[in-house]
Amino acid sequence: MTKIGFDAPTLIRTKRDGGRLTDAAIDWIVDAYTGGRVADEQMSALLMAIVLRGMDRGEISRWTEAMLASGEQLDFTDLCRAGTPLPTVDKHSTGGVGDKITLPLVGVIAACGGAMPQASGRGLGHTGGTLDKLESIPGFTAELTNNQVRQQLHDVGAAIFAAGRLAPADRKLYALRDVTGTVESLPLIASSIMSKKLAEGAGALVLDVKVGSGAFLKTEAQARELAQTMVDLGAAHQVPTRALLTDMSCPLGATAGNALEVAESLDVLAGGGPADVVELTLRLAAEMLDVAGIDGRDPAQTLRDGTAMDAFRALVAAQGGDMSAPLPIGSHFETVTAGRGGTMGLIDAMAVGLAVWRLGAGRARPGEQVQSGAGIRIHRRPGEPVAAGETLFTLHTDTPHRIAAAMAELDGAFSVDDTAPVRQPLIIDRYTE
Amino acid sequence: MTKIGFDAPTLIRTKRDGGRLTDAAIDWIVDAYTGGRVADEQMSALLMAIVLRGMDRGEISRWTEAMLASGEQLDFTDLCRAGTPLPTVDKHSTGGVGDKITLPLVGVIAACGGAMPQASGRGLGHTGGTLDKLESIPGFTAELTNNQVRQQLHDVGAAIFAAGRLAPADRKLYALRDVTGTVESLPLIASSIMSKKLAEGAGALVLDVKVGSGAFLKTEAQARELAQTMVDLGAAHQVPTRALLTDMSCPLGATAGNALEVAESLDVLAGGGPADVVELTLRLAAEMLDVAGIDGRDPAQTLRDGTAMDAFRALVAAQGGDMSAPLPIGSHFETVTAGRGGTMGLIDAMAVGLAVWRLGAGRARPGEQVQSGAGIRIHRRPGEPVAAGETLFTLHTDTPHRIAAAMAELDGAFSVDDTAPVRQPLIIDRYTE
Repeated sequence: MTKIGFDAPTLIRTKRDGGRLTDAAIDWIVDAYTGGRVADEQMSALLMAIVLRGMDRGEISRWTEAMLASGEQLDFTDLCRAGTPLPTVDKHSTGGVGDKITLPLVGVIAACGGAMPQASGRGLGHTGGTLDKLESIPGFTAELTNNQVRQQLHDVGAAIFAAGRLAPADRKLYALRDVTGTVESLPLIASSIMSKKLAEGAGALVLDVKVGSGAFLKTEAQARELAQTMVDLGAAHQVPTRALLTDMSCPLGATAGNALEVAESLDVLAGGGPADVVELTLRLAAEMLDVAGIDGRDPAQTLRDGTAMDAFRALVAAQGGDMSAPLPIGSHFETVTAGRGGTMGLIDAMAVGLAVWRLGAGRARPGEQVQSGAGIRIHRRPGEPVAAGETLFTLHTDTPHRIAAAMAELDGAFSVDDTAPVRQPLIIDRYTE
Repeated sequence: MTKIGFDAPTLIRTKRDGGRLTDAAIDWIVDAYTGGRVADEQMSALLMAIVLRGMDRGEISRWTEAMLASGEQLDFTDLCRAGTPLPTVDKHSTGGVGDKITLPLVGVIAACGGAMPQASGRGLGHTGGTLDKLESIPGFTAELTNNQVRQQLHDVGAAIFAAGRLAPADRKLYALRDVTGTVESLPLIASSIMSKKLAEGAGALVLDVKVGSGAFLKTEAQARELAQTMVDLGAAHQVPTRALLTDMSCPLGATAGNALEVAESLDVLAGGGPADVVELTLRLAAEMLDVAGIDGRDPAQTLRDGTAMDAFRALVAAQGGDMSAPLPIGSHFETVTAGRGGTMGLIDAMAVGLAVWRLGAGRARPGEQVQSGAGIRIHRRPGEPVAAGETLFTLHTDTPHRIAAAMAELDGAFSVDDTAPVRQPLIIDRYTE
């Protein structure tokens, strides 16, 4: 019991029985849990009640604000460059396989005159984390002070930094959810993402909500609800927010794994790279520039003329990365070849994600080391012609005993057919306020 | 992860998503939690999922067996007296206000030739615990060794002992449920009660399932389901089990509070006492003798001829209690008098239970001390004539600052009317295999 009269068992019972948590109750329990005055076992019971009973929009919004209030909130509204206000905008993806979009995108946005402050995380399970990818560049660090973030936004138009100081309530809650079967809840997912994104101080947000086998949410209905919920949470916090619903049934691009994805991102920044990675980068860039009110340069032009590449290199250099050093590559490899000729069919994103995880590119628990050089290169993408005996996939790892498990994940994850597969469009829908 | 391949998050998700826990999964998680290999926050999430998703009969039965297997299981099947097998039988009440039935009942059963091994607990909240009542007798102890229990069953036909060693999984789970809003679940209540009752080794069981405002379960439908579930759990464990569904909308008898209820029990054992206490004692005794196959003496006769009193006194003496010492009574008292004449209406059991708790007879948290002399004497019971100004209730406590809160609980909990109230029958229904 506290002075203001809340106690955890009563709030747990309220939600358990289908009731609504008041604003004051949410403020109290998030603060008390973060401060250690509500026990893990009480919060996990409440979380399970939330998973099964839900939260309404008002509760989700307040839960988000309470987590946001638990830590630092960056603010770049007064940032100027050459006497002119510098608009900030960020993108967040709900996570997918081969999703390296942040890397080329950050170069495009900076080259177009925006500034992208991205608080980012490390991966868990079958989806990779942006920091894991960037940390495969020798010397790169994401441990930036707030002043370094601000200075870098001014100087190079982007900063990608570890989200550690932001929304500590969310970090503590996420670790609890991970071990208590309470991750899969739309209100908890939406508030977790938005508390960190609103804390990082971007003036506008674009969300890339994935749907399909490689996505966190498996059904399109769930993904749609998450997209609209997060757009509304941004608006409620006076941060203009949009969302794209995008396909994650097949891996994005032709690589999955940390250094492999950096290399592919450099291809895109050099004006090449897989068409789907280019398309999604440019589409997200267009949304970001529009929602942030940035007029002027054509995003596609920044890929053609090298200005996006220059901006990306400046970002990496500012954060200690050495682009002249070779990117790591797993010391052992194995290939998967085509048993017949024909046309490459769909490739299951989840299977590839799990295979990459098995190879050592991902982690099973927070804090584990990942292999920068582990991953999979996809040589033939859906719809491309295949000759019998041709290499379809190359698997890389530093730990060859992991190859068999990765091969097992790929078993049945693709086919070579007589006819071309039918694919969803990459961009399925768009959500605005 | 363990050798046998279970992990807590997977089991939690299974139940969360409406699935069934296998026998092996239940065995694993109850054992792993009791042994500290599954964390409190994981078990509380699973418990909340069970509260909201339920368990089927097979799951409840296995959960009960797993808790039973976590500790000692007493066995009196080889107990003999004078060369003849001595039948054992116990009663359990789900808890009510003024429910002192175990005290006269233990004397009746022993006097009729049965033996009653009762593992009992202390009270929490508005319902009293049998041990709290008996411990108001100076010197009484419930800390008996297994050999003492066995010897006492042989010598005096009864033993009432602290349930501490039995079903430690249940004790650990109950403490967790108490702080995580996961008490109110029929599968969890049924398995909690039955794991302890099956562990105490009685050859047969009769359950007194209370329904009404003073009962733990508020709706008759819930009480009925609990009764049938527990009868079935007993049968599944080869222990013949019956249940009576009894009314707990009004307090049982004319007293509520520890020493006050001992005194009233002695009145019943002396052949007097309130009619409802006598009726329920004899009805439960008849069920117990019948289900245990004990022929012979008439229970009512044991109250008239003093043999039940003798047996009760022998039990108390064997456990160190001094019946010659005066029973404690709260040093301060306050009365509630009738504002008008008429007929006493219904008295709300929950209100009386809370008032008694406020006076210091109950505890808010496990381990708190209780006042032996605190409690309420009900001078006019439902349907009895009342004169204006007459004393209706006397409240006793050693801590007079508690009286105001107790008086507030009684406010509106009764009425004096022109006509007699309509009462439920005391015995509402009966459940057998």
